[in-house]
Amino acid sequence: MTRRIDDVDMKILRLLSENARYTYKELAEKLGTTRQRVSRRMDKLEKSGVIIKYTLIPDLNKLNHVHVILGLTLRPTVDLDEVVEQLKSIDYVKIIEKTLGSHSLVIHLVGPNDMALTEKMIRSIAKEIQGIDKMDITFVTEICKFEVI
Amino acid sequence: MTRRIDDVDMKILRLLSENARYTYKELAEKLGTTRQRVSRRMDKLEKSGVIIKYTLIPDLNKLNHVHVILGLTLRPTVDLDEVVEQLKSIDYVKIIEKTLGSHSLVIHLVGPNDMALTEKMIRSIAKEIQGIDKMDITFVTEICKFEVI
Repeated sequence: MTRRIDDVDMKILRLLSENARYTYKELAEKLGTTRQRVSRRMDKLEKSGVIIKYTLIPDLNKLNHVHVILGLTLRPTVDLDEVVEQLKSIDYVKIIEKTLGSHSLVIHLVGPNDMALTEKMIRSIAKEIQGIDKMDITFVTEICKFEVI
Repeated sequence: MTRRIDDVDMKILRLLSENARYTYKELAEKLGTTRQRVSRRMDKLEKSGVIIKYTLIPDLNKLNHVHVILGLTLRPTVDLDEVVEQLKSIDYVKIIEKTLGSHSLVIHLVGPNDMALTEKMIRSIAKEIQGIDKMDITFVTEICKFEVI
């Protein structure tokens, strides 16, 4: 199913992880190849799901937003996929990661920088999601490094 | 210092968070404005640090990489900035976030999908960083949703 990722693919992924706005021309120049070849490889990486998306990383503090990470430990009997579907539909739940280890699910909430509203968001998750055993609440105050690969 | 973020800025940020590769032309069309105006606003958002970077979100499993989140609780006497500087220089530490709450620091490690190597990475953090009181270890197995704003 999944095509093997070769060195050129990895180079493209690394360049785009440094700056997702590089044009095909810039990428082709950096790699010593043609725009067409770069574009074809990127298409494949997108279609196979290796590239989930191109996005920006904002400084949420500067946007006057609060960024909360919840580490959820769910009871082992809980249907994780059902919980994920429920969380997906909540607008302020921005990131959902299935995990193994200390937490069964890590989710990120983003909302206006208002403590009363933040409390409401968190309590609403705690109330609506069945089977939460433990919830670690962590507020992100500063992003000091952000690389993906 | 920081210029007020207005509705047009927010629209640009939202569009780029959905797809950081939108061209100036595409953004201008979606916003009913000119490429020059979009470009000028993006410059300002970049220079003021509202946009930290444009990047891609990869499916690390498909790249045969492991993705570990460590929630670090440090002793209150520890100099957080010193720890951050130390962590920044470690290549496999990809994300560093200063936090308040359950953890003092959330860091993401990315490495080859090999349990022995993963254990080595984690133990090396535990050994080299002074003043870790508690370390929550969470393996990301699937990204189910990824939005930033």
